[in-house]
Amino acid sequence: MKIGRVVGNVVSTIKQECFRGVKLLLVQPLDINGRAAGQALVAVDAVGAGSGEDVIVVEEGKAAADVLEKTGAPIRTVVVGIIDEVKLDRG
Amino acid sequence: MKIGRVVGNVVSTIKQECFRGVKLLLVQPLDINGRAAGQALVAVDAVGAGSGEDVIVVEEGKAAADVLEKTGAPIRTVVVGIIDEVKLDRG
Amino acid sequence: MKIGRVVGNVVSTIKQECFRGVKLLLVQPLDINGRAAGQALVAVDAVGAGSGEDVIVVEEGKAAADVLEKTGAPIRTVVVGIIDEVKLDRG
Amino acid sequence: MKIGRVVGNVVSTIKQECFRGVKLLLVQPLDINGRAAGQALVAVDAVGAGSGEDVIVVEEGKAAADVLEKTGAPIRTVVVGIIDEVKLDRG
Amino acid sequence: MKIGRVVGNVVSTIKQECFRGVKLLLVQPLDINGRAAGQALVAVDAVGAGSGEDVIVVEEGKAAADVLEKTGAPIRTVVVGIIDEVKLDRG
Repeated sequence: MKIGRVVGNVVSTIKQECFRGVKLLLVQPLDINGRAAGQALVAVDAVGAGSGEDVIVVEEGKAAADVLEKTGAPIRTVVVGIIDEVKLDRG
Repeated sequence: MKIGRVVGNVVSTIKQECFRGVKLLLVQPLDINGRAAGQALVAVDAVGAGSGEDVIVVEEGKAAADVLEKTGAPIRTVVVGIIDEVKLDRG
Repeated sequence: MKIGRVVGNVVSTIKQECFRGVKLLLVQPLDINGRAAGQALVAVDAVGAGSGEDVIVVEEGKAAADVLEKTGAPIRTVVVGIIDEVKLDRG
Repeated sequence: MKIGRVVGNVVSTIKQECFRGVKLLLVQPLDINGRAAGQALVAVDAVGAGSGEDVIVVEEGKAAADVLEKTGAPIRTVVVGIIDEVKLDRG
Repeated sequence: MKIGRVVGNVVSTIKQECFRGVKLLLVQPLDINGRAAGQALVAVDAVGAGSGEDVIVVEEGKAAADVLEKTGAPIRTVVVGIIDEVKLDRG
């Protein structure tokens, strides 16, 4: 799982049936200091996250589809939490 | 899942039986600003995507094979949507 | 599996039900010399790890959810051990 | 899935039983322009690929073992096709 | 699967039950020329590999746990072979 920031969303009209009605967020993964790091992700939203919010992203596994009650669908990458705060403890 | 651009296709005559009749797209992943980022992918096409189009790519899991009704085949990476627009909201 | 250092934790009130009561650690992967390397991870804790400790992190698979007795939940990335010592043997 | 070039092979006498009689190819992933990109892979061969040939590589999932009729074996990464041509269409 | 060099081992007393009695190797992945490339891995040993040896590493999937007869355990990354020789054929 990673931390990321929702930076927008992806609009697609021609897509697999299982994606109908599913909001697709564009998420930029962050490093521990909140800076952009690594490749952009397209994630489905399970918690009502919006642009500018920092989130927890799960990247793989069939569970992503299960969360949306679309078991077996080719859905990977899901936002599972909105981050209130990242507490760093570097002594 | 990632965003990527279809930049061509891959022609292979000697291949696993399960790939017969399957179009193989060459996809360059993109960052949030639409620039090339990360390794090229070979993806099967589930939505009729063509060269120059930006797409949503799913990279792993058995679901990729299921989409093509080839359950159990060693097929990973599938184009599941054609992108109309990426809306960035950076305040 | 990777070695990483716990550098803090992630606070999230709006999250998937399966994450309720689960402590989310922020983990920085390390290279063989103990330097930061690669993207930050959000990991659940199965061994009571705390900030500043070096740990063993498992990054994928349904087993991560099983460890927390939440089989089938979209939980990936779990701290499975606290490292006492990394012994390097470079002759 | 990725495109890669077979650059050699790996000889191992002490190995898991399931790898007996299996040829292990060393494959260098390529970018869309045919340049080396990313970490070397060790892949089993399902199509008779040889050194210098460009190939399609599948990197994960149990299907890799299934292809070799070794279901359940810890085999990942398999060459599933020999590439005749990569057609780039950048307008 | 990757090629890597065993550079040491990881000592952990507080760990998941399934790791008891399991030797944890620290492995540095290598590129095709034998140079360090990419993040360090913690791998369990299925073939008796020791420090300084080059090995074949499998990085994911439940098969890693199966090899150790610990099916269902959150064990990923296993050393499945000791490399005698990497034969490069670049014409």
